[in-house]
Amino acid sequence: MTVGMAQDSLRTLIEVGQALAAERDLDRLLDLILRGVTRVVQADRSSLFLLDEARGELWTKIAQGLEGQEIRIPVGAGIAGEVAATGRLLNIAEAYKDSRFSRSADQSTGYRTRTILCVPLQTAAGRTLGVVQALNKFDGPFTREDEELLLAFAGQAAVALENATLFTNLETAHRELQESYQTTLDAMVAALDAREHETQNHSQRVARLTLHLARHVGVPVEHEMEIFRGALLHDVGKIGVPDAILLKPGPLTPEELVVMRTHPDLGYQMLKGIKFLSMAREIVWSHQEKYDGTGYPRSLRGEEIPLGARIFAVADTLDAMTHDRPYRKALSYAAARAEMIKCSGTQFDPKAVEAFLSIPEEEWAQLL
Amino acid sequence: MTVGMAQDSLRTLIEVGQALAAERDLDRLLDLILRGVTRVVQADRSSLFLLDEARGELWTKIAQGLEGQEIRIPVGAGIAGEVAATGRLLNIAEAYKDSRFSRSADQSTGYRTRTILCVPLQTAAGRTLGVVQALNKFDGPFTREDEELLLAFAGQAAVALENATLFTNLETAHRELQESYQTTLDAMVAALDAREHETQNHSQRVARLTLHLARHVGVPVEHEMEIFRGALLHDVGKIGVPDAILLKPGPLTPEELVVMRTHPDLGYQMLKGIKFLSMAREIVWSHQEKYDGTGYPRSLRGEEIPLGARIFAVADTLDAMTHDRPYRKALSYAAARAEMIKCSGTQFDPKAVEAFLSIPEEEWAQLL
Repeated sequence: MTVGMAQDSLRTLIEVGQALAAERDLDRLLDLILRGVTRVVQADRSSLFLLDEARGELWTKIAQGLEGQEIRIPVGAGIAGEVAATGRLLNIAEAYKDSRFSRSADQSTGYRTRTILCVPLQTAAGRTLGVVQALNKFDGPFTREDEELLLAFAGQAAVALENATLFTNLETAHRELQESYQTTLDAMVAALDAREHETQNHSQRVARLTLHLARHVGVPVEHEMEIFRGALLHDVGKIGVPDAILLKPGPLTPEELVVMRTHPDLGYQMLKGIKFLSMAREIVWSHQEKYDGTGYPRSLRGEEIPLGARIFAVADTLDAMTHDRPYRKALSYAAARAEMIKCSGTQFDPKAVEAFLSIPEEEWAQLL
Repeated sequence: MTVGMAQDSLRTLIEVGQALAAERDLDRLLDLILRGVTRVVQADRSSLFLLDEARGELWTKIAQGLEGQEIRIPVGAGIAGEVAATGRLLNIAEAYKDSRFSRSADQSTGYRTRTILCVPLQTAAGRTLGVVQALNKFDGPFTREDEELLLAFAGQAAVALENATLFTNLETAHRELQESYQTTLDAMVAALDAREHETQNHSQRVARLTLHLARHVGVPVEHEMEIFRGALLHDVGKIGVPDAILLKPGPLTPEELVVMRTHPDLGYQMLKGIKFLSMAREIVWSHQEKYDGTGYPRSLRGEEIPLGARIFAVADTLDAMTHDRPYRKALSYAAARAEMIKCSGTQFDPKAVEAFLSIPEEEWAQLL
């Protein structure tokens, strides 16, 4: 900066710059930049063009007065195009006398452009992201001070744009990855269900039952999704159990039982290190534990068993009892209810059984 | 801002503020802030304390002169503690006459603190992230202008800190999720291998072979990892194929063949929507295609089959031929080589076979 700038202008720059830096939403940021341009150099209108490097074009949707229209300009063409190509500002005192000026925007909006100050959006590292232009300064032409102010402002805007773009891209990638992961897990669960159960969607159904019970037990709302996922994935480790054991109609031999009982450990291993599944993983690991300590793989008892797994145990047994199996017909609700009461305190956490009993039979009919 | 500030100071503020906004690495940012503090108010030293809300403490590792030591101060205690608690700056003209000043830092460093200007790091939304303090102004006490300058600087620093923290956290979460996903996929592959193959680690071995061949074919380096992953996951869809079909020693019936041949489609579905596996997924889908169009599921031919899948086909057959199977012994390298040559142009892409032939037998001994 070589020319003097008024203190007021510098303060505006600091204030506006801070607002830009704090804005991570791209659309709101572009809007802030547009409004900043007119404020910093006291102009009537502003526009912003972003560089599309792949196509060698500038584009915008946010020129004031041209809302909703996308304009594309080849880099090098016109005033904005020249600024993007050279990286140097242009200060035009009479637009209609400048051969580079295109009247088409004015023609379609009825606006009359007189003066233009156009500067590059350049990052600290010297990358050009686009250009901003201020139109029609309120009093006379744009000054040398305006040039410096708008250059400094454009520098702040470029950093903010770069940050917001990076942040938005990373956020999008992260959300997509989470969705993909869920897709893969869902597909695994569906494949497992198809392999093991005559009645499909066992895992989906048990997950819904578990969630319903969890709400009646009073589990905090922020844990609901993880408990649902844990219930959904409970048998994921069965990928490693052969059909001959998994689908055997009669009782398993002691050797077969050993193989069968590896599945909670294997499932736990498969989901290890996944932060957003840390609670779900505990349910997978503990879904075969029993309240009185006679379950597996760790023979946990009582409160040692994660609450989600204790709730799951009730939901899983309930679903099993109320559906046909190769070796027996489905039980009635009344019979299942009697069994639940009988096993409260031994197989099941009394709290989870109580939650089950508090839900009327009609409601279960919707879920089972 | 109510007091006059010199243009030079305001310009420094704009310049330093922009450097802060551009820095996304947390450690480098903290260092920039420390250096900014001394520069903006012409002080000898600076320190920065971050607020640990959970513990109600301020902490730092980066007070100048105390490198490597972590200091913790309860919010409310001492000068920094008071500024954090009230959100209002303190300007101390004689540290040793102020009862809130703690001499312990001076005692351990041999430094002599005279003047202190301490201001809160407050975001635009009014959140206090910590405090910064400037020690020992070069000429006389800190002025009202210094107070305003340091407050404005702290505002810029707070926004930059908030951005860098958010960005770093998101980046870490994303990296962890990618690793977790890979862990899950690896566990699935290992479980599948354990189920199907007498010789374990078939998928791992074929993935290494495919990668080796891909390098000889001249696949671009940036595609190597995806091709490796595709080869690793090629049979992931077999989760949905029952053992009775998957492990049947003799030939399959037409009905069984239909089930068996669903596995490339199923695998493709399981990995759908995963951006970083988009090329891998194509290999999973096409790994049973043959060069002459007689494969499945889509009967693709020639260049219609993704290159990675054409390379994989050679690696997979090679691995199968050179290892024992329940129904036959492993073939010698020479026999496998003859078979490869025979099937070049029908089952296999001649380019992939050529790559195989160009690798000396001794090298294969390491891989098979």
